[in-house]
Amino acid sequence: MDLMKAITDHESVVRSYVRNFPAVFEKARGSWLYDVDGNAYLDFFAGASVLNYGHNHPELKEALLDYISGDNITHSLDMASVARAEFLEAFDRLILQPRGMNYKVQFPGPAGNNAVEAALKIARKVKGREKIMSFTNAFHGMTLGALSITGNSFKRQGAGLPLTHSDSMPYSNYFGPEHNTIEYIDRMLQDSGSGMDLPAAAVVETVQAEGGVNVAADEWLRGLQDICRKYDIMLIVDDIQTGNGRCGKFFSFEEAGIDPDVVTVSKSISGYGLPLALTLLKPEHDIWEPGEHNGTFRGHNLAFVTARRTLELFWADDTLEQDIARRSSMIEKRLLEMVRKYPEAEGTPRGRGMMQAIEFGNKELAGKTSAVAFKKRLIIETAGPDDEVLKLLPPLTTSDEDLVKGLDIIEDSLVEAMRELGITKKAASE
Amino acid sequence: MDLMKAITDHESVVRSYVRNFPAVFEKARGSWLYDVDGNAYLDFFAGASVLNYGHNHPELKEALLDYISGDNITHSLDMASVARAEFLEAFDRLILQPRGMNYKVQFPGPAGNNAVEAALKIARKVKGREKIMSFTNAFHGMTLGALSITGNSFKRQGAGLPLTHSDSMPYSNYFGPEHNTIEYIDRMLQDSGSGMDLPAAAVVETVQAEGGVNVAADEWLRGLQDICRKYDIMLIVDDIQTGNGRCGKFFSFEEAGIDPDVVTVSKSISGYGLPLALTLLKPEHDIWEPGEHNGTFRGHNLAFVTARRTLELFWADDTLEQDIARRSSMIEKRLLEMVRKYPEAEGTPRGRGMMQAIEFGNKELAGKTSAVAFKKRLIIETAGPDDEVLKLLPPLTTSDEDLVKGLDIIEDSLVEAMRELGITKKAASE
Amino acid sequence: MDLMKAITDHESVVRSYVRNFPAVFEKARGSWLYDVDGNAYLDFFAGASVLNYGHNHPELKEALLDYISGDNITHSLDMASVARAEFLEAFDRLILQPRGMNYKVQFPGPAGNNAVEAALKIARKVKGREKIMSFTNAFHGMTLGALSITGNSFKRQGAGLPLTHSDSMPYSNYFGPEHNTIEYIDRMLQDSGSGMDLPAAAVVETVQAEGGVNVAADEWLRGLQDICRKYDIMLIVDDIQTGNGRCGKFFSFEEAGIDPDVVTVSKSISGYGLPLALTLLKPEHDIWEPGEHNGTFRGHNLAFVTARRTLELFWADDTLEQDIARRSSMIEKRLLEMVRKYPEAEGTPRGRGMMQAIEFGNKELAGKTSAVAFKKRLIIETAGPDDEVLKLLPPLTTSDEDLVKGLDIIEDSLVEAMRELGITKKAASE
Amino acid sequence: MDLMKAITDHESVVRSYVRNFPAVFEKARGSWLYDVDGNAYLDFFAGASVLNYGHNHPELKEALLDYISGDNITHSLDMASVARAEFLEAFDRLILQPRGMNYKVQFPGPAGNNAVEAALKIARKVKGREKIMSFTNAFHGMTLGALSITGNSFKRQGAGLPLTHSDSMPYSNYFGPEHNTIEYIDRMLQDSGSGMDLPAAAVVETVQAEGGVNVAADEWLRGLQDICRKYDIMLIVDDIQTGNGRCGKFFSFEEAGIDPDVVTVSKSISGYGLPLALTLLKPEHDIWEPGEHNGTFRGHNLAFVTARRTLELFWADDTLEQDIARRSSMIEKRLLEMVRKYPEAEGTPRGRGMMQAIEFGNKELAGKTSAVAFKKRLIIETAGPDDEVLKLLPPLTTSDEDLVKGLDIIEDSLVEAMRELGITKKAASE
Repeated sequence: MDLMKAITDHESVVRSYVRNFPAVFEKARGSWLYDVDGNAYLDFFAGASVLNYGHNHPELKEALLDYISGDNITHSLDMASVARAEFLEAFDRLILQPRGMNYKVQFPGPAGNNAVEAALKIARKVKGREKIMSFTNAFHGMTLGALSITGNSFKRQGAGLPLTHSDSMPYSNYFGPEHNTIEYIDRMLQDSGSGMDLPAAAVVETVQAEGGVNVAADEWLRGLQDICRKYDIMLIVDDIQTGNGRCGKFFSFEEAGIDPDVVTVSKSISGYGLPLALTLLKPEHDIWEPGEHNGTFRGHNLAFVTARRTLELFWADDTLEQDIARRSSMIEKRLLEMVRKYPEAEGTPRGRGMMQAIEFGNKELAGKTSAVAFKKRLIIETAGPDDEVLKLLPPLTTSDEDLVKGLDIIEDSLVEAMRELGITKKAASE
Repeated sequence: MDLMKAITDHESVVRSYVRNFPAVFEKARGSWLYDVDGNAYLDFFAGASVLNYGHNHPELKEALLDYISGDNITHSLDMASVARAEFLEAFDRLILQPRGMNYKVQFPGPAGNNAVEAALKIARKVKGREKIMSFTNAFHGMTLGALSITGNSFKRQGAGLPLTHSDSMPYSNYFGPEHNTIEYIDRMLQDSGSGMDLPAAAVVETVQAEGGVNVAADEWLRGLQDICRKYDIMLIVDDIQTGNGRCGKFFSFEEAGIDPDVVTVSKSISGYGLPLALTLLKPEHDIWEPGEHNGTFRGHNLAFVTARRTLELFWADDTLEQDIARRSSMIEKRLLEMVRKYPEAEGTPRGRGMMQAIEFGNKELAGKTSAVAFKKRLIIETAGPDDEVLKLLPPLTTSDEDLVKGLDIIEDSLVEAMRELGITKKAASE
Repeated sequence: MDLMKAITDHESVVRSYVRNFPAVFEKARGSWLYDVDGNAYLDFFAGASVLNYGHNHPELKEALLDYISGDNITHSLDMASVARAEFLEAFDRLILQPRGMNYKVQFPGPAGNNAVEAALKIARKVKGREKIMSFTNAFHGMTLGALSITGNSFKRQGAGLPLTHSDSMPYSNYFGPEHNTIEYIDRMLQDSGSGMDLPAAAVVETVQAEGGVNVAADEWLRGLQDICRKYDIMLIVDDIQTGNGRCGKFFSFEEAGIDPDVVTVSKSISGYGLPLALTLLKPEHDIWEPGEHNGTFRGHNLAFVTARRTLELFWADDTLEQDIARRSSMIEKRLLEMVRKYPEAEGTPRGRGMMQAIEFGNKELAGKTSAVAFKKRLIIETAGPDDEVLKLLPPLTTSDEDLVKGLDIIEDSLVEAMRELGITKKAASE
Repeated sequence: MDLMKAITDHESVVRSYVRNFPAVFEKARGSWLYDVDGNAYLDFFAGASVLNYGHNHPELKEALLDYISGDNITHSLDMASVARAEFLEAFDRLILQPRGMNYKVQFPGPAGNNAVEAALKIARKVKGREKIMSFTNAFHGMTLGALSITGNSFKRQGAGLPLTHSDSMPYSNYFGPEHNTIEYIDRMLQDSGSGMDLPAAAVVETVQAEGGVNVAADEWLRGLQDICRKYDIMLIVDDIQTGNGRCGKFFSFEEAGIDPDVVTVSKSISGYGLPLALTLLKPEHDIWEPGEHNGTFRGHNLAFVTARRTLELFWADDTLEQDIARRSSMIEKRLLEMVRKYPEAEGTPRGRGMMQAIEFGNKELAGKTSAVAFKKRLIIETAGPDDEVLKLLPPLTTSDEDLVKGLDIIEDSLVEAMRELGITKKAASE
């Protein structure tokens, strides 16, 4: 069977990543992917941050195989199961308690967008208001509610009807570092004539991953929290892509020291790539009626099993956090070197933890670099409204050696991409 | 660890089924569930029709264990993988081609609501209109788009904002068998003064599963298709709960002989309880831009593996279809007997294939019967706007013997429930 | 100056009646209009029921001239003025008190649509709900709120955005006399799964004037009121075109004996063609904050002067009511004769009071008859979604002689129109 | 009859100005109002700028009396009339042609909000987009469409449902003179990820009259026009309160030299306080279907008569413009003096033409000053989201002597109001 043909013949033209990374993948382990021809690819994409612990981690795999082999229950809706109970206990013990956090856990469905939709609902229910404050270049998902707070116009137009009930406010540094957008938002909220209705909630990413790896300043996040408290607005952190250690700590907002009312978690939470999503609610906001929000796959036992094992393996002590810190540094340093070495790329490096990126002056350069890198067997994606940002998302568990290998490929690819695009070093006189 | 306490302590109060079936489940096989104390429960619920082939089917399990053990790729977004390609090929070969169908397959995300959201988007895009025709007592999911075409007022209010852009039309038999609601809909559409805007699509379930097991007449479905063609409206069948053999054939609309433009599929499609959803599109409607709709878990390799194996095991010949037909008959016959034997229950049996139900005169009787049955170790749920309908959803693979066993428990439970509620046979003179 | 050219050169192409009645009018008195060439036209249109008391009634004119000559205040927003106070007192004394009614009077702006917009706002405020129940073929105006409850698709599309927050229910006799649409509405409201959200209000016309002179049965109106009370829905009667004696009594709903929560009044209320609109509110619903709804021309003193004089002249005794009754009879009888005399017209007469109409089998016949009539110097308009209805709206004060004259012209025009359209009497054998 | 009691007994509690100016007015002439007890009030409110030419101007009155006496037609919907044609011709000859402007005139209904609603519709129709760009502290009217682009939260909440399809952008100087909000808007529009959908139109007031007499800089208006052209957005100037000479020229935007696509005109256009509204459309945007927008009182003959006469009297030469310039100067100078003389008032004077205002530090001072002034027989209103601005709107025809008289009363009232509120001059040391 021609496997790629099976896909192009039968799958909708909506498919996308397969166009950028046109290989048929078969096996995977750690930071490496293997295609049907046995070629090995270094993975600096990690399934869009779903694979923070690498592919098919052997201890998670073992837990999963044991569970399945033993005829343990696979699907049980939101009935009680051993796996569900054990995950809840472990999440509380290993994640919430050590951080002094107190959240009720809702399983809103298997997808990140389900977590966002549930968060919007509970905010509107608790506050009795309809509008939501969202941010420029936000991305929260493709269902109608999540899409209404997403910034990207191409994705918004896909809704096919006007998206409403949200107001898009300028994100941290949206007008450059000299403008404090918190003041702008404060002005709009305090002015009863501003035309901006008081929202039920503000939904924010601490780093806008899809939006171009825009990093919110810690101070800005604290300012946003102050605003929310001042005007009785619920603060929702969408930690789907930024959480699970990606930005350094388990939750991306720990460093800023804020205390959100609601947190959405998904992607790497299962540790193994299995669909699972959580909406964390402060107990005082957990005012749902039973079944008021539901969903068939709201809590998937296989995912619970690997999720719990992940917490035990990686979050029982600070080994991983230290690894992330060291590796983040390595990446940051190297990207900064590249940017300085190739000023003609007009690169701006930025990021937090192991989500690092370079925005280039030429909007085609990121895409071209990604394409060249793929030929060199590195998988790396682009982000931003015009895909103008090269975005590094290696598994957090990538060995230092592989990290260097990948960074080398990025540099080589960048050089080659600039050559192809005719981007050359300008004479000193310019 | 007190497992149930871990759940009540840490999980949101939104949890629901755990309230009706308060056991902690551990193992499962075929039509049987086992709790932590080793009690066996006969499953007439099948994970809300996710487990049409029973729990942990041994051949599916084997395929899954083989795949995982071999370090085959687990998560790959919408990049090409062997498992993805093989599923697509098998779905075309075993399902679409034999039925003379031609659909492109979209993987809109892991949840059924993702399939519905994608269907609404493509309809609005293709037709350039915003409104959707939905039906009384419809259920399509809990994300904002899916919820806007769902009938249940309790669930709708959970949105926290007015649900718009849809018009709820009377379903088949909504006003009783003597009224043809197709004529009503036709009148509203043909009258340019009706105040009903021309919709992009009509979204219909062939049996309203959550809505109370309301069965659309085949003729009504054909009438609806005629209407859609007459007014250039896209016909979307939501086959998430009714498909995968539940109503007798792979697709629930095969019997009516209609040819929908879009079909949503989820729940039992993976065969093993793994989250997977499909939106099937007529090729002429597959006009998406790449990535215009996306989602992290849009096609999950483990689910592809079991899904393909399921198709090969159950849909390569008509053995299962014949089993379903025989078992449907057994259930129907037995329910009819019960209804006649206990006229005081004022029961109305209805259903299609192995989704059968009884609506009782006393609105509390279904819930009470379900509760008594649970004590007798049978799991069976209720449906309808007031949970007034007892709904049977046994795995399609339930043995005839277990089927009889379950039906016996239902009868015993009904009798006991009536006694508890004081529902007694009325004297002949009444 | 070429007057018609001044209009076609400078006025927007949106203008409409000037296309059907292409004369330049200069003078008017009673039921007669005169163009610049001195031609006299009999007016069976009455400015779309604004001129129920004819053009330039001499006693109203005198009151108006006196007021203006005396430098009495013309424009005073909603400050107190003698004219405002005297109108309010007269409206209470001559209209409300004799009918045992108790309403607070709101002046929401000069246009009928202002009255409707205010009615929708107060209903939403009082009930705390967003949706409104409207009816097939309703017409309530062209501002965004009023348009959202209007049925006509051509007018709706003019909004340029999807009209939402209303549900269009079948009007009286919408499916023919054998179907009681109240039962339909009741079913939708009582069923918590119907997908129809509980509305704040139902807005109804007792006769749908623009919608084709569809007459609601008195029993249907009472049924609607029962429904509203059963489900705590506010009942709003839009009496803008049907009120002011047009249907026989001052309010069109008096005959049905219903007691609306809110009534909108405009068009003929000033008696002289001056812009004025009222929203009548039951005192218990008058919970506005000061200025929560406003509008520059909310109560126009010149209109107050003629409005008060109109009430004194026409509504202090029952002379006018008796005249209307007699004249209604004359019209009804004559239309019935025409319909019988010309069966080939396939005419269906209908109406209430002095709003009478014939719907013809051939959809072009009404328009053609109107066009022929205009050549014969009778002004008469069409109504209905396809302008298929010939609609008679003579001033209520039209003399019996002029009434006969107009009806004669209608008959002659009908005959001529049928000839032009080739509508001929069918042979008996057909 | 107790006239005030008739009003408080029968009129809705929504009434507002009558609360601030609690007299019953009877007569009026020029800049003077007279109550039923014969007290004379100097009018610095001018019916919210409806009476730019004073009350009951004798030559307009004569034209009106002549028209009415002669039995000329009063109400004719949008049929051709002599008065309509003559107004259109005069408007073109005296207003549009001398300014090199080319607009088609639409009569959208008698109220300013009708003009705004029509403007929104045509913009959405022409551009095929749903969203509208509005501005902080905008006021455009109280019908649902107009309200959705109005900033005031109290008025917005009156809608009773979430107002959507508009984005409120910061007006000129919203963040102080050092921030150029045009850059902000440009950034939001050019960034395809901003979450702000491309609007059909921007609707702007050159001075936000209700919003607190916020004056847009000419440069800002030109910047907005540039933005509109850059992104193919229609520019709509709402000139309802600012036009008709109020800001110095006939149109308020003449000074800035911008060329709007659509202009709304109402209030003083009839010159006599009669309800009339215009929507001016560039011919290329006049793509209405006949009757696609309509309204009963769309062009009122009495208003046409006085409107035409007004144009001839006041806009045939530049006498009035010069008067306005001189009087504006007098007011500006005097307000500046007051502000300097009473620094404890913390007054900020601002305005354009004869719409001038002072914002005070103490938010109660404007209201208190207005109340004291009323006792001294001067009528003057407040504006701004918290009524913190004292707003002068004398008739443009107010004699210099009366102007001084009014300004003297304002100063006296301010002093008295400060005393009552305990606002005292601070010691130099402070």
